[in-house]
Order: sequence, then structure tokens, then C-alpha cells
Amino acid sequence: MSPYVYKYDQETVHIRLTTAKGDVDRIILIHGDPYEWDAEREEDRDWNFDPDKEKFWKTQQTPMMRTGADATHDYWFVAIKPSRRRVRYGFELSTAEETAIYTERGWYDEIPLDHPGYYFAVPYINAVDVFDAPAWVKETVWYQIFPDRFANGDVTNDRQGTVPWASEAPAYENHFGGDFQGVIDNISYLKKLGINGIYFCPVFAAPSNHKYDTLDYLKLDPAFGTEAKFREMVELLHANGIRVLLDAVFNHVSVDHPTFQDVIKRGADSEYADWFMIDSFPLEMDPPNYEVFAFEANMPKLNTANADVKAYLLKVGRYWVEQFGIDGWRLDVASEVDHAFWRDFRKEVLAANPEAYIVGECWTDSQEWLFGDQFDAVMNYGLTEAFLTFFATRETTASEFSYAVVRNLNGNAMNVNEVMFNLVGSHDTPRALTRAGGDKERMRLLLLSLLTFTGSPVIYYGDEIGMSGGQDPANRKCMEWDQEKQDTELLSYVTELIALRKAHPALANEASYVFEQIDDEKNQFVIRRSSPHGDYLILINNGEKETRFEFSGRAVDLLDGTEWAGEINVGPIHGTILQVKNG
Amino acid sequence: MSPYVYKYDQETVHIRLTTAKGDVDRIILIHGDPYEWDAEREEDRDWNFDPDKEKFWKTQQTPMMRTGADATHDYWFVAIKPSRRRVRYGFELSTAEETAIYTERGWYDEIPLDHPGYYFAVPYINAVDVFDAPAWVKETVWYQIFPDRFANGDVTNDRQGTVPWASEAPAYENHFGGDFQGVIDNISYLKKLGINGIYFCPVFAAPSNHKYDTLDYLKLDPAFGTEAKFREMVELLHANGIRVLLDAVFNHVSVDHPTFQDVIKRGADSEYADWFMIDSFPLEMDPPNYEVFAFEANMPKLNTANADVKAYLLKVGRYWVEQFGIDGWRLDVASEVDHAFWRDFRKEVLAANPEAYIVGECWTDSQEWLFGDQFDAVMNYGLTEAFLTFFATRETTASEFSYAVVRNLNGNAMNVNEVMFNLVGSHDTPRALTRAGGDKERMRLLLLSLLTFTGSPVIYYGDEIGMSGGQDPANRKCMEWDQEKQDTELLSYVTELIALRKAHPALANEASYVFEQIDDEKNQFVIRRSSPHGDYLILINNGEKETRFEFSGRAVDLLDGTEWAGEINVGPIHGTILQVKNG
Repeated sequence: MSPYVYKYDQETVHIRLTTAKGDVDRIILIHGDPYEWDAEREEDRDWNFDPDKEKFWKTQQTPMMRTGADATHDYWFVAIKPSRRRVRYGFELSTAEETAIYTERGWYDEIPLDHPGYYFAVPYINAVDVFDAPAWVKETVWYQIFPDRFANGDVTNDRQGTVPWASEAPAYENHFGGDFQGVIDNISYLKKLGINGIYFCPVFAAPSNHKYDTLDYLKLDPAFGTEAKFREMVELLHANGIRVLLDAVFNHVSVDHPTFQDVIKRGADSEYADWFMIDSFPLEMDPPNYEVFAFEANMPKLNTANADVKAYLLKVGRYWVEQFGIDGWRLDVASEVDHAFWRDFRKEVLAANPEAYIVGECWTDSQEWLFGDQFDAVMNYGLTEAFLTFFATRETTASEFSYAVVRNLNGNAMNVNEVMFNLVGSHDTPRALTRAGGDKERMRLLLLSLLTFTGSPVIYYGDEIGMSGGQDPANRKCMEWDQEKQDTELLSYVTELIALRKAHPALANEASYVFEQIDDEKNQFVIRRSSPHGDYLILINNGEKETRFEFSGRAVDLLDGTEWAGEINVGPIHGTILQVKNG
Repeated sequence: MSPYVYKYDQETVHIRLTTAKGDVDRIILIHGDPYEWDAEREEDRDWNFDPDKEKFWKTQQTPMMRTGADATHDYWFVAIKPSRRRVRYGFELSTAEETAIYTERGWYDEIPLDHPGYYFAVPYINAVDVFDAPAWVKETVWYQIFPDRFANGDVTNDRQGTVPWASEAPAYENHFGGDFQGVIDNISYLKKLGINGIYFCPVFAAPSNHKYDTLDYLKLDPAFGTEAKFREMVELLHANGIRVLLDAVFNHVSVDHPTFQDVIKRGADSEYADWFMIDSFPLEMDPPNYEVFAFEANMPKLNTANADVKAYLLKVGRYWVEQFGIDGWRLDVASEVDHAFWRDFRKEVLAANPEAYIVGECWTDSQEWLFGDQFDAVMNYGLTEAFLTFFATRETTASEFSYAVVRNLNGNAMNVNEVMFNLVGSHDTPRALTRAGGDKERMRLLLLSLLTFTGSPVIYYGDEIGMSGGQDPANRKCMEWDQEKQDTELLSYVTELIALRKAHPALANEASYVFEQIDDEKNQFVIRRSSPHGDYLILINNGEKETRFEFSGRAVDLLDGTEWAGEINVGPIHGTILQVKNG
């Protein structure tokens, strides 16, 4: 149970191995049923070790594939389907000069066949333990909406002090009146763009413009609209094939949350005293004598191990799925909340909708949440940084980019990668275009790469029309609806990429993802995506000169429909997608 | 969440790193709070990445210790107590010539201090997620009893066909009448031996002599005694400071179990049809068209994901703890039952007794069960094999033994190792003495090593008096109660070792465990166990000649009370324990 050995589905085990780079030429997986002995010696079948009996474990050999490399290691992969859902396995590693066998008991010169006990094991594939994210996510392109800033469709629900749309620079305190009606009014825009899922930043009652300081998880913020309006929006989005992901903060609440206010007032006598992690009474705020998010005294951390807190938050998780039909949750600061809570949360949400999608905000290596018992995916910020430092800030070489991507893909199981929430920017980061110094060519290449990558890509509202903005709050400008001010060329490009991704599943999750022809000097490479339906080549020229890519046979450039034989020129900081023609 | 990075307790994080053997001279852990910036730049505190702001993450540096090696790698360790239960960290690795920084984003020449986002993370230590085995296990020495073969205290409950004690060689089918009264009658023997826990092989109603083919999980096998007798035995054992561990088979049942019989009879219409994993109806047994243990058609595998099966088995788990006060469970074929079941099982059992101990039968690398949400320990057969191939069969060198032990200790978290169920033989393996070719000196050295090892050691009934026996059924002889036929010298030796382990917690779990002076030619080494109460040296001469061990200062040989200065001679295939005198 790790990214190295995992159950891909109810019949398939994936096994990965890393070796020192260039150290090994060939790896064969030696594998067999833990209880199956050589047929000729069937009478000796016995799973216990007996040094006096001559027995031969029955094995098969399957070659592993080298799928990529990083700076220090080669990555190998094999998928096997054990006949009885259980397997023991080891590795035969070879160079031209020597062969060695790697087993759970260490290294051997020859394959030890006297007993499967030498070998690593996947004891049994129990269906309930298999990572099982909803299939629709693999075909989803997300659009992230910061509700106060997408569109103001109903000025009557604006809170006091709301300023006219885009009349000011976004600041920590200002409100612009974005709401559910604004989303409804622009469904045709979103449909035309082609996205089929919206991730909404929090919509629950909260004082701030970002709503991450929740006051009531069971009430919508009135500035966004009524429950009826929310329901109408969800239903309209669904009718248009667009899924809805809501955002919840279960790590902490606003200092103004009634429970914490009660603790401030009544101290240890408050019925909510154990809802928080409090060192001593009375409460002090500077510095806080209670656990908080980061160092923010106004964001007291919830004690999610407390049964009442848990029951309350699980109810929230179920409520919006059950009552309003939302399709899943994005969970704020998820990595700081306990695992036991998330296991129960998954059960609760999936009981309401077995097809719900659960995404955690985890900025670091996230395997511990992604074994199938907690989240389906995380916000893949590690990948974000790899993409931005190559395409936007141009700090890394093509090789370094490939290393980071290979590490990212090998850092989680393949069935996790297929539903990973992949983004190039969010409400928590400077916008990609700003990281790219405003360079639209870089932005196009970045989006081409994101939209031909595995997983479930996310577009931060406005990125598709060339919006810019630095760190929060500058990254939260009002959506630009004036077409004169939109980069409609970029919008068309993104629209085309999304359409291609939907028309060609091999550009999403139904194909391998392998780097080829990496050239650091020219700053270019090719991604080969091989699928049962044929091969696709994603050509990336991140260099500042036009370059020529070579390939076998004929291929169609999917971005302009032209057909090429054996080679194609690609302009500076530019890329394209070839569909290889077989036969 | 892995043996490499884990929460040791509510305040402490353990971090391990492996490096290619001899490749690195020094490792420093670079670590800090994820949200804490340099104090002089407090105003810049901001956990989001902003390339335009100059910021400096605040870090500390703590050296790692090299704790051991195997054939290919060095193992490094450090324990840290983050001030706010959260930490980001990376590694500075140095040789005489160069220094490199290893982070989550890859390798750097210098420590990247502009942002904690480069670093690995333990986002938050939530108490509920910390592995938390009962403390009493660290101080327990177990004795494994195969109930039909320990002692027949009451012939009136013998089943028909029971043969007189030890009148026959143990066979697959014979019964000898061992029972609860037999255990009661010999409590003084067990007390004198010094063990303080008994692991009973199954005691539930079943046709076989081993009882692994359960007919009724809620009934004791009548041949072992009544419920009243069982209760009396548990209470007497408890009164004598001896804990009780029962054995349950939740992977499969006997083909004669009423539920499976009902399915045979009614086919798909049986209310138990989904209790098993059945491919098609009607049932066929040769070969079985349903899932079984190994290839045993008479052991149908239970569908532990079925809600009724789950409820039934969880009830069993709770029942014996709640109603009879047993102290925990040993779980048969645990690795083939689903993880979701074991998570619920743990909750259920711990709700009845928060101090219960749960041990899984897993023959392979077992991390996936040992993160605190499922088992406290497994039967550590990997260690068994390392011990036997060095001390009993003498196939391995001192170095190879050390490699296997270091791998085993680094294969699980330290808090897991402290409660690991460590054995040199069981009802499922040939007896250790038989593996040792009947050589009592080897057996003594083996038991010395087991009883000075970390974890929770287990003695298979009769091993302490020199009983022998090959693979099942030969390893299940009747306990030898005739003192003339017991090896009373071995018994005294084991009794003394157990007494020393209890008197000196550093010989159990309150000290490090480090190999020193490994000498393959002489076949000897020293284990240094350093503790706040002083150092202990376990001297192991596995060679066939007397040898001399050297050490600093003065030390007392705990086995005979003699005091030595600087050196001590140890005979062939012999070992001893020195307590180092400080000052």
C-alpha cells in the first residue's frame, strides 16, 4: 500500500521500482500465487516452510518497463493480474555483466524457488480496499470560481459596502457582489468554454470576502443568494453537464463562530470547551493559548476528534450532497485535520452519493490521504510549481521539468493520478500569467501542457481570458466581462484545447505519458501518449527559436488540421498536438 | 506516514533516511515550523509563495544519527519535537568533498530558505492519529499455548476418541484432551517461568484439534471446558499477572459452519449467499467455485465487506473482551482480510477495552496494517527467519544477521517495534530446537537473543524445556510434564533471562539496539543497548571457538554476577549480558 505497490482495480496490481539512474538494463518481475507449487509436485503443496522437503514454488516472469527518470533514478513499472487476486513477487535486475535477485529477505544470486516466503506480497485484493474515485472525474475539466469575483447577477443581495464591479483593485476587505445569479447568467459562457465542473470557493456564511472564516456551515452567505437560488444554480449547471464542487474549512472556524464565542464567554464551563484545543483558561488571544491555523488567533483550530464536532461536521458533509445534490467537496487545510476524521467523512459523503469526489488541500507529498480511504485527490501544487518554473518563470531546463513531472507521477498510484486536481494557479497563488511576466506565449504553452496532462485539470476563473494578478488579494480581481478587454484569442485557444481533450481521451487519462527527445539546449521535448486507439505526440518547444521535431510516419496536427510526414516545424515558445496515423 | 516519517507520540516526530552504504558521512536535518518566518522579518509572515517578496523561512538544524546498515544501505535517524506539532524538513547530506540538500522538490546546492514550500512536511500531529499500543505489551513476555496439547486437567470433558497424553505422535487427526483446567493446574509453573501473557490458539467450537476451522465464534469448544471454567481460568491468570490473548479466524470458516451449509443447501436463495465470495451457483467443491483460503475448498473465505458478516464478526471481537475480560486478539490470516474491516474491528475492540492488544498474522512486510488504525503488531516472522538462519541453521554470517535485523527494525516505526510480537517458532513452523538440529547451545543463544531484543517476545510452549518437532503436526506434541524428561537446565536459563528482562527494562524496550564489533570470521558481535539508566552489552559468540570481547571500563555479567574490567572471554556458541558500570 504505497505508490510502489498498489491495487489498481479489483483484478490488477501495479508494481513500480526505482533504480539508481543508468544502473540496471533490464528488470523482470518474478511472481506467483502465494500458495501454488509446481504442478508436478502438487502433492507437496504446503505453505509452511519445511527445510527438509524439496518443493518448488510456481512462478511466472513478466518484464518491467522503464517509464521515466529523474536526476538520480530510473522508474520501472509493470501491471499484473494475479489469477486469484493474490501475489508474491520479487525482481530480477540485470546489466550486461550481472544479474541479481531482490526479495523481501534481501539479495540473492539466483531466484530462490524453494519457498514463496522469500518474496514480497500483496496478500489479497479485497474490493473494498481498492482506490475507487468516481469515473466522471477523469473526463472533467474544472473551472474555479471565487464567488465574490465571478459575476454580480443580483445587486439586491449585495451586502452593505459592496463596491461597483471592478471599480477598485481587489483588497483584503472589499466586496464586489459576485453571486449565484452571476454564475447562472454566464452558464452559456462556461458551456462554450467547454468546462464541465465548477469548483466554488466557500459559499457559506462568513464575514470576509473569501468566506474561509466560516460562521455557519449550514447557511449560504446571503450576499451570494438564497437557498432557492443556489438550488436553481446547481440544477441548471447539472442540466448543462457541469458538476459542482463546494469548498469547506473543517480545520478551523472564524473567531466569531458562535461555538468559539461561547467558549470566550463561559470558559471551561462552555459546552463547546472541548470543540477547540485549548491549553488553559481564560482564553488569551495575543499570543493565543489555544491551537490556531498558522499563527492566526482569529482562526481557532477545531478538535475534530471530539465526537460532537465530528458529528456536526459530518452532518455538513452529508447535508449539501443530500439536500442540494452537489458532486463533491474541496477541503481546506485538509492536511492538518486528523486522518480518522477524513475516513469517517468519506464514508458519510459517499453514503449520500457514491459518485461524490473529494479533494484535499495538501501542498506536500500526499500519499497518506490517497490510499482510497480518505481523499480521491489533492490540489497538486507540486506539479503546479514544476509547470510554472519551466513554462512561466523559465527557471528550469527541459530535463529538470521532466524529472519533476516523473517524480510527481510516480509519487502517487496511477488511479490517483487519473483524478488528480491539477492546476497552474488558484486563489492562493499569483496568477499563472503574472508568474509568466505577462507573456501570453508562455501562458499558451502552459495551458497546452496542463490540458494534455493526465488527471483532472482546473482553470482558475479568468486565466482563459488573460487575467493577471500577483499574490492574494491581487489574484482575486473581478472577472473581466468586457470582451474588448478579454484576450479572446487565448479564450479560443483554451476552448479548442478543452474540446480536443474531450474528443481524444488519450489526451486525458486513457494513454501513457512518456517524455521523449528531451533537448536542454533547444529547450524542447516530446510527450508520447500511447493508447489502444493510437499514439499522440505533444510537441513542446520552450526555446526561443523555431525548431524541427521528427517522428515516424504521418501525423495530423490537431490544432490546425494539417498533415505532416516525418517532421514538423514548431515556432519559438510554442507547442502542438500530433495524432499519429497508423498504417 | 511510513516507517521513514511517523509520529512517535503526540509531541515527537521520528525521521529516518537511508543512503547508499558508505556514501554519506554526515546528515543534518533542516527543520522549522511551516508558518514561521525569521523573527526580524515578522511583518512578512505569509505562507504563500511570492517571488517578489524577500522572505526567510526560520529553520533549525539537528544532526541525524547513523543507527545501522544492511548490505547496501546506511540507516539514519533523528527524533524532533516541533514546538507546535507541525514541521517542514529537508536533509543536508555531506561527505568530506561535497554537500547537497535534499528536499521534496529535489536536490539543491544550498539550503533554500526563501520558502518552506521546498520541504517535506508533517502537517500536524493530531493525537487521534498517533500509533498508540497499550503500554503493558512492552513489558510482556508471552507464552503460546496450543490448547489441546498443553495439559489435560479434566478428563470428563475429553471428546470421544481422545487418546492418552503423549501416547501417540501428534497427527492431523488425534486429540489429547488439553483444556482450561490443565492451564489452571499449571499456573504456578508459568508464574515461576516468569511469563506474563498467554497467547491461546483458537478455543472456539471446531471439529479439528487446531480449531482453526471455526464452527461457532461465540461458543467455547466443549473439549476445552465450560464458559465458567474459561472465566475462572482468565480470572486466575489475571490474578497472577498474566494477560490473555485469544486467536480468531475471520478470513474463512469451516465448510461445516452453519452459514456455509445453508448456502450449500439453498444456493443463491440462502440469506448467507453474500457472506461468501461465490462465482456461480450451484456450489462446486472440486475445484471450488468460491473463494477459499489457499486452495482449501473446506475453508470458504468470508466476505468481510458484507454488512451482516461484519456486524457478526465485530460482535465476536467485542464479546470475549467485554464478557470475559480477555486482553486482546491474535488474528489468523489477517493479511487477507480487508483493511476497512480491521479499522472497524479496532474501534469495536478498543471501545470495550482501550488497553486491548491486537496482533495480526502477517508473514510479510506489514506496514500497511501498522499505522495505528488497524493492528498493534504482527507475528514478526521476518525476524524469526533472520534469527533461525543465523543461530539455528547457521546459514548466515554475523553481518548478514545484522543486516536482516536492521532491515526489520527499520521496516516499522519504533513505537511498533516496541510492541512487536517476536517469536522463534509457533504452531505453524518447525520448532526452533529442531531447526537447530537439536543443538541446545544454539537454542540457548537463540533465546538469549530473543529475550534481549526489543518488542514483546513469545515462547512457544515447551521450547523452554527443550521440546522438539518438525513441521505441523510434529511441532504440536503434548507438553512434557515429566521433569525427568524436561531439560531443566534450559528451563532455568530461560527463567533467568525472563527475570533479567523484567528487572532491566533496557534489555526490553527502554534502550537503543545497535550492532557493534561485528566479526564475520569469528562469527561474533556485540549489541549495545544504551538507555538513560546506563548501557548494556549483549555479547554474542556464534563461533565455534572461545573468544574475547573488549569493552571500556568495568561491567557486571548479569548471568553469573561476575565483574569484569575491559575484557571478557565467552565460550563457543555462547553469549552473555554485561551491565556497564559508569564512573
